[in-house]
Amino acid sequence: MDIAKYIDHTLVRADATPDEIRNLCDEALEYGFASVCVNPSFVPLCTKRLLESDIKISSVVGFPLGATTTKIKGAEAAGAVNDGAHEIEMMLHIGLLKAKHYDFVKYDIQHVVEKADGALIKVIIETAFLTTLKIIDACHIAVQSGADFVKTSSTYASAGAKVEDVKLMREVVGPNFGVKASGGIKTYADAVAMIEAGANRLGCSAGVQIVKEAKGA
Amino acid sequence: MDIAKYIDHTLVRADATPDEIRNLCDEALEYGFASVCVNPSFVPLCTKRLLESDIKISSVVGFPLGATTTKIKGAEAAGAVNDGAHEIEMMLHIGLLKAKHYDFVKYDIQHVVEKADGALIKVIIETAFLTTLKIIDACHIAVQSGADFVKTSSTYASAGAKVEDVKLMREVVGPNFGVKASGGIKTYADAVAMIEAGANRLGCSAGVQIVKEAKGA
Repeated sequence: MDIAKYIDHTLVRADATPDEIRNLCDEALEYGFASVCVNPSFVPLCTKRLLESDIKISSVVGFPLGATTTKIKGAEAAGAVNDGAHEIEMMLHIGLLKAKHYDFVKYDIQHVVEKADGALIKVIIETAFLTTLKIIDACHIAVQSGADFVKTSSTYASAGAKVEDVKLMREVVGPNFGVKASGGIKTYADAVAMIEAGANRLGCSAGVQIVKEAKGA
Repeated sequence: MDIAKYIDHTLVRADATPDEIRNLCDEALEYGFASVCVNPSFVPLCTKRLLESDIKISSVVGFPLGATTTKIKGAEAAGAVNDGAHEIEMMLHIGLLKAKHYDFVKYDIQHVVEKADGALIKVIIETAFLTTLKIIDACHIAVQSGADFVKTSSTYASAGAKVEDVKLMREVVGPNFGVKASGGIKTYADAVAMIEAGANRLGCSAGVQIVKEAKGA
């Protein structure tokens, strides 16, 4: 198993600098990560840095709160794709999910799918805020909305990925949909536990250490 | 001193529900806060709820990371104003400030000022990430960009408002520009300390308790 191919090499801190983003891209090239995951303003820089490589570029939409308007989420996705992003990680509207406005939550995702012009869509459901039943609802809605992945966490809530949540998400979405675990995956053992639970992609800022650990193991 | 008039009654949690936002508006009407501060998707609900009152509506842009594109920040501001927001709180691009791309940081703010169609513009500089010198730079840039306020914090970083930062910000921007303190203002004593340091607006989720404390004091 090449663990690097599971990892979205991620730097979405508010204070990330262009030099740090360039370094993120260089590490992705060196270690062969699945993608780099960055905030929208850094997509053009990644596009330039990763030209002629097979490293994908992921960018975030409505991140990390999910409470901007549907129209802005769509425009942000379209802009990121236009700037070179291959994968879009959108925040679901958590407050409206909690309030059972399921039609709205679905429409919000569908609009992003539509505007993202064929890019892979990961829906961040932010498990830290959700009950088991709401995690199930969120997964069903993501599948019905034409997205490609459900993702556990933005890393800006009180907790990140939990093995039991990843297992549940995989069970709900079935074998042919993506499940991404993120938040608190700091070691090779953490990464393997998430993959065994059903994740087929991992969001990590510690990707380099995880790959080094895997090679040493 | 009517402390309520200093307070932006704030609910920008990712999982805030429509009922909680309605309650926020009702509390603003009851206590006479300066504004309610909400995520963009909730502006229309506030507009309806606060119709024919003098409570302003504040909404956030590029929040809380500041690392989306300038174009999206502008569109988000224009959308919020169109939906009824009177005040826009935009996140400055922290990573590009740290990297000394001052022209970009200024342009980013100017674009929001331009798109916000006369709304009051508060620039969140996120002091937790900044050195003293960078706080000074951020304040100068905000003044030069045509904004109306500098604001200490998004409340999503490691620290909120500090008295010494508010003093510094007031000193740099002078007496005729706004300074908003936010993050960790939980008591009437906290609120008074920030006002004495130079803040003329406060962002609080504990506004109701603060007003009650003020009346009891």
